Amino acid sequence: MAGYHALPLELLAEEFAKLPGIGLKSAQRLAYSIISRPEEDVERFANALLSAKRDIHYCPCCQNLTEMELCSVCADEERDHSLICVVESPKDVTALERTGEYTGVYHVLHGLISPIDGITPDKLRIRELLARLQDGKVREVIMATNPTVEGDATAMYLAQLLEPLKVKVTRLAFGLPVGGSLEYADEVTLFKALENRTAM
Amino acid sequence: MAGYHALPLELLAEEFAKLPGIGLKSAQRLAYSIISRPEEDVERFANALLSAKRDIHYCPCCQNLTEMELCSVCADEERDHSLICVVESPKDVTALERTGEYTGVYHVLHGLISPIDGITPDKLRIRELLARLQDGKVREVIMATNPTVEGDATAMYLAQLLEPLKVKVTRLAFGLPVGGSLEYADEVTLFKALENRTAM
Repeated sequence: MAGYHALPLELLAEEFAKLPGIGLKSAQRLAYSIISRPEEDVERFANALLSAKRDIHYCPCCQNLTEMELCSVCADEERDHSLICVVESPKDVTALERTGEYTGVYHVLHGLISPIDGITPDKLRIRELLARLQDGKVREVIMATNPTVEGDATAMYLAQLLEPLKVKVTRLAFGLPVGGSLEYADEVTLFKALENRTAM
Repeated sequence: MAGYHALPLELLAEEFAKLPGIGLKSAQRLAYSIISRPEEDVERFANALLSAKRDIHYCPCCQNLTEMELCSVCADEERDHSLICVVESPKDVTALERTGEYTGVYHVLHGLISPIDGITPDKLRIRELLARLQDGKVREVIMATNPTVEGDATAMYLAQLLEPLKVKVTRLAFGLPVGGSLEYADEVTLFKALENRTAM
């Protein structure tokens, strides 16, 4: 009598519960919501799942996710291929692209150095970054990892690694977020904002 | 340059965003999480979606969701088929089954009367409930709709409708939730708890 549920519904809820941040209760709610949707809707969802997994691979150049041979940024000849922005994950590329201001290309590390989690430099796409710098055509590498311990450590590690290659290495500016307030800024951010003050 | 994303990933995120309570940001996070999972995992997810939609239908007797001809409760001869518990949705059946104490059968209305949302009695599975009562073998109908305006209205409507059938109609008890505290109970709950006090 225990655990009364239609079996396919239970299996679907289990699948939803495997997603990050979805608990068992939410998973059941999501599973029920599927039942009440038209069949072609559910088919579209199932196909989107399979297509995302099967058709997406890493861009051989920048390591970002793409369904094409080369990702749309790397394939774009209008962009400045001598400027590489190094980011942790594909989501960061999306965030930077939203600014609409960056005209260079990217390199996605797929992680940050974090020995405590067992993520050593050889687990990141660093070899691929070095390979892109061999022909000497790149003039600047921007470290756009997050301003966290891991992000800073990774940026520092890469900066040292790139030193012999004589390429300019820069880091994103830290300071007050636009729309933020001095009152609520933490000490480190405020210190960085003071340190990096610019002429008006 | 705007909206840079691999297309299949974008389509998958759109599908996730159609689920109840999942915003665009979460949907993107979920879509990314799919990419990093093994292909057989994603196939199992896609199949679970399709199977839940295709194989599940309403039990012809109690209207609960099932993948079998008759749901497991209605098909169980050990259960008391003369006792019907009327609930709003299949989730309520699961909740009641978890108690492990109820030995009767169910009837799922698939909604509550709510004229403001356009849900009139003819949109609920009331005809099916009346049909189950025709042979006079049912001795009691328990109204187990939620203690809300709509739940109470639906229970009241059904009680009136069943009156000529001379079947005993009862309602779930209202009172303090077990583990709750007087201090935080709302006035109506406390009033109901007082009103329905039992001898010790």
